[in-house]
Formats: sequence, C-alpha cells, structure tokens
Amino acid sequence: MSLDDPRAKPHDRLAALLDTEMTAVNAVIRERMASRHAPRIPEVTAHLVEAGGKRLRPMLTLAAARLCGYEGPYHVHLAATVEFIHTATLLHDDVVDESGQRRGRPTANLLWDNKSSVLVGDYLFARSFQLMTETGNLRVLRILSDAAATIAEGEVLQLTAAQNLSTTEDIYRQVVRGKTAALFSAATEVGGVIADRPEDEVRTLFDYGDALGIAFQIVDDLLDYWGSDATGKNVGDDFRERKLTLPVIKAVAHADETERAFWVRVIEKGEQRDDDLPHAIALMDKHGALEATRAEALSWSARAKEAMGRLPEGEIRDLLIDLADYVVARVH
Amino acid sequence: MSLDDPRAKPHDRLAALLDTEMTAVNAVIRERMASRHAPRIPEVTAHLVEAGGKRLRPMLTLAAARLCGYEGPYHVHLAATVEFIHTATLLHDDVVDESGQRRGRPTANLLWDNKSSVLVGDYLFARSFQLMTETGNLRVLRILSDAAATIAEGEVLQLTAAQNLSTTEDIYRQVVRGKTAALFSAATEVGGVIADRPEDEVRTLFDYGDALGIAFQIVDDLLDYWGSDATGKNVGDDFRERKLTLPVIKAVAHADETERAFWVRVIEKGEQRDDDLPHAIALMDKHGALEATRAEALSWSARAKEAMGRLPEGEIRDLLIDLADYVVARVH
Repeated sequence: MSLDDPRAKPHDRLAALLDTEMTAVNAVIRERMASRHAPRIPEVTAHLVEAGGKRLRPMLTLAAARLCGYEGPYHVHLAATVEFIHTATLLHDDVVDESGQRRGRPTANLLWDNKSSVLVGDYLFARSFQLMTETGNLRVLRILSDAAATIAEGEVLQLTAAQNLSTTEDIYRQVVRGKTAALFSAATEVGGVIADRPEDEVRTLFDYGDALGIAFQIVDDLLDYWGSDATGKNVGDDFRERKLTLPVIKAVAHADETERAFWVRVIEKGEQRDDDLPHAIALMDKHGALEATRAEALSWSARAKEAMGRLPEGEIRDLLIDLADYVVARVH
Repeated sequence: MSLDDPRAKPHDRLAALLDTEMTAVNAVIRERMASRHAPRIPEVTAHLVEAGGKRLRPMLTLAAARLCGYEGPYHVHLAATVEFIHTATLLHDDVVDESGQRRGRPTANLLWDNKSSVLVGDYLFARSFQLMTETGNLRVLRILSDAAATIAEGEVLQLTAAQNLSTTEDIYRQVVRGKTAALFSAATEVGGVIADRPEDEVRTLFDYGDALGIAFQIVDDLLDYWGSDATGKNVGDDFRERKLTLPVIKAVAHADETERAFWVRVIEKGEQRDDDLPHAIALMDKHGALEATRAEALSWSARAKEAMGRLPEGEIRDLLIDLADYVVARVH
C-alpha cells in the first residue's frame, strides 16, 4: 500500500509528508547523543532511539510548526528536544518500573545496569535543555521546562498512588496529564509558538496535544487488561506492578465486599496468584469498567479532533485529525 | 568566636556576609521544591536540603555576583538553580553508588526507595531549568545546561572507569571536571555573566571555580584513604566501590608485579578481604601516592587563588582566596 493511500496509517502518512524534516531531526539526535569522553552514552541511547520507536512526539512538533506556516530552522531543534526528553523519561521509567522489555527488546537497565540508565537519562535531559536553548526563544524554554517538571511530578504521583485503593479518577487524570499528556501538549504548543501564531491558536494546539496524550495513555492502560499479543502490549504488567489505572479504579468503585477484599489482597497487599489476573478482568467486565474506560478514551479523542478542527484547513490538519482516531483504533 | 573574626572559617564568614541573599535563596528553594500534587517531592527534597549541607555552590554564585557589583535580583535565582542541580545530582548519585549515608543521615534511597530518588531528582532538574529560564538571560542558560551535560558525562565516565586499572590521570581529571568542577565553575561564571562583566573577568571567574572544584574533589578522594572520623569522611568507601581515584591511579602506576596482582584482585575482580584497605594504604604510602595527590590538590588551590587575585580587590575577593585555602585545609 502506498503511503499516499488514504488507507495507510495516519502516522505513516504524516511521516512520509514530514520526511525531510524527520531526517534532519534524526541527524540532530545522532549528533547530540554523542559524547566526547563517555562512549557508554551513545551506546545506551542508540539502543533505545534506534529500536524503532514511532517518533510520534517529535512528529507532532514538526506537524504543528508546518500547520502554522513556520519557515525557520528551529522546529527541528524542538522536535529533537522533545524526543530526548521522551527517551530520558523512558530510561528512568524502566529503572523505576524494574522493566525487562521495551519495544520488544531487553531494556537498557538489563543490558547495562540501572546506574547507566539513570546517568545517561540525566545526560539526555541536559542535552535537551541545550538544544532548546539554541532556539533563543524564552517562551518555548518556559513551556518545555514546565513540561519536564510536570512529567516528573506525574511520575512521582503515580508512584505514591500505586497500591493505594483510594486513588480517585481525578488523581489518575493528574498522573496521565503528567506522565504522558504534558509532553504531547508541549510538543504541539511549541510548534505554534515558534511560528508566532495568535494566542487562541497556540492554546488550541495545546488542547489538541493534551487530549491526544490523555486518549493515548488511557488506551495504553486499557490494553493492559484488554490487549492481546497482536497489540504488542504485555497484558498484566500494570496489574503485577499494582498500578491504579482507570480500569482498576472503576472496578474498585463498584466492588461489593468480597470483591473489595480481592482488590485489597492483589493491589494493596500484592499477594497475587496465577488466576488473579483473569479474575480481575472478569470483575472489570462485570461492572462495565473496561467499556467505560474505552468510552473515556474515545471522548478524549473526540476532544482532540474538535480542537484540531478549529485550526487552518489542509492536509496536515486532516492527518492530525486522523491521528486522533488512530490512537484509539486499537480499542475501537 | 565571632564571624567577623579572621580566624573563623572563610566559608562561615562568607555566609555571614551574604546572609540576606542566602536567606532569599533558601526561601526560593523552599518555595520551588513544593509540588501541588505530589507531597513525596518536598519530603524527599527537604530531607536532603535541610540536612545542613554547606550551600557552598550557591554561595559561590552570590559571591561572584557581588564581587562583580551586580545589583539585579537574578543572582538569587541562579544560586537556587545551582543548589537544585547539585541536590538532583546527589539524589541520583546515591542510587548509582548504592549509598546508605549522606551528611550523617540515611540517604533518601534508603528512607524511601530508589524510585523516589530518581524521580524527585528529575523534578529538581526540571525545576532548576524553570528557575534559570526566569532570568531571561540566554547566556546563563547555555552555561548551566552545558554544565548539567558535563556533570552527567563525568558521572558516566566515572562509572565506566571504575574497576578499570588502565584508567589514566587524564581520565581522572575529566571525571573530576565533570562530576564536581563543572558546577563550581558554572556557579562562579554566571555571577560574572549576569553582572555583564568583560570577557576576561568572566573567564577568570570560570578558572577560579574550575580550579577550586578540582582541588575540592581531589581532597575528597584523598580523604577516602587518608581521613579519620574527625574529617567526617567514611574511609574506604571509594575502595569498596572500586573507584579509580588519584591515589589508586598513582599507586598502580608504581606497582611491581606482586602489587599489581593485589590491585587486580581488589579493584578489577573486587575480591576484597578485611585487611586489604590497610594494605592498599601502605602501598600508596610506599610510593608517595598520597603525598603526590596532596601536592596536586594544593597546586589546584594555588591556581584558584592566582585567578582570584586578578579580580577586583575587596572583602569578597579576600574571602574567596581564603576559601581556596580552606578546601585543602583538611589535608594541609
């Protein structure tokens, strides 16, 4: 199927449309992940960067900048910045989650060690700040450093909410906004800011990224209970890590006394047996928790499309609208 | 003893002189370590920030700014930035080194967990970038984001050089410049930059911080073999972690065949017995490695003083010269 074919994935069609700029972003990433003194740094980074991630976040920056008619050189720096922040976060996440697999390969903390993942992550954070400083645009510096703080805050909140059955949907949304949506919304917002667009347009770009990121994360959390090998998700990871994601929160909210005792045992106490995951899924089904989670993902996707609909017409806009459908397609 | 007494420690006299500004810095630190959503963040940060660290690095920024006649408000932001970068680094270091004690108290990774230390460190990094962005000065943003990258690079280099007997004095110097001196030199340099001083003065401030930081770290590494309870150092920590610090590198360089076999066993293979540390110290003594390390620390201290001597006369300059003596006083 040709990439111009409207049946191709919107993500691949965006990549084809932004090919020249993406090539420039990849060149910046390769150049800036180098280290004069410490060869361990590019080794660890390359393992992750070249593992075939979708480059979704940098593509959002490039797409937003082009949608806004930006003609300068700095959207490339900003897209690389966004990917570096994302990669740094993944390295630290894998340490925090004690993960063994990412993108179908062993994680860096397993191949090297936790120490390397922590320090190379720090290096990439610093590199991302160097890159954004080169744009000379103080407003994008504010947006991206705010996003970095919000991401870390969301991750800490997730950590303290884990294993805690009193976690509310409000707290869940704060976690999701932090750990995922903050970088999506910063990625689209800075595209409008460097193009010097009016405030309402910049705000709309933010809203699109925010809603897209929330939809994306809810789907990810749903697939942890609803997925199959085909979706590339490891079903049950969040369950084993006792994370309070939306399907669990919704099921707990409807639990009777016996069910509550089950959740206390598996999530709060962490005493899990082989058949607990299927039972958890059955309880979610019984209370419509999976269906309600899916509806929430679709509603955020709709919000993203509605925001994008307010922006200038054209091929990029249509693709970004399709992208909002695509992130929820796995649960459609 | 009064703080005006010339026999008081230069560090305490500086603190007295900069009391108003240091109070403002501490207020910014307390305000910015807060988190609306994640109370774990201020808990972990306070544990470290309020454990009675000397605030040496932020004081360097305040002192440099005042020496340069700066009258604006941003030296306070920059000093808080420097302290946040330092605190973030300590949190991550303790995870990397698997430390149990810092400043005489259990480390955060022990009191909470490694996850909290990693994520709260990330939060403080992000906060530091927010703070420096508020100065609106792109040159200080470049200097401080470069320093953050150099620090991480130095830490990774230290990690890969550990246990490797072929580590040279050149590599050691790169590690020290990275993990310690980069933040000292950035701290003093930005003081001159925000005061808009001429290039040669800014460069001299950098040189002072660089030499001071190197002297400081060499002394720290020396005390790991030469210290006593009185110096507050845990003798033997670096030895147990098999770090290639200057005393080891110098002793290995002079080792005969039997001695080399000893170093291979304890450092490369990590097979350490109870009496290995005294034996290592005896070998260092035999080859004058501790004395040579001490001489190197003194020579960097002298370089720092020489640099400071080229800056405008006055009380601050005299105190910064005394400070260069003070950092090596523990091995004088």
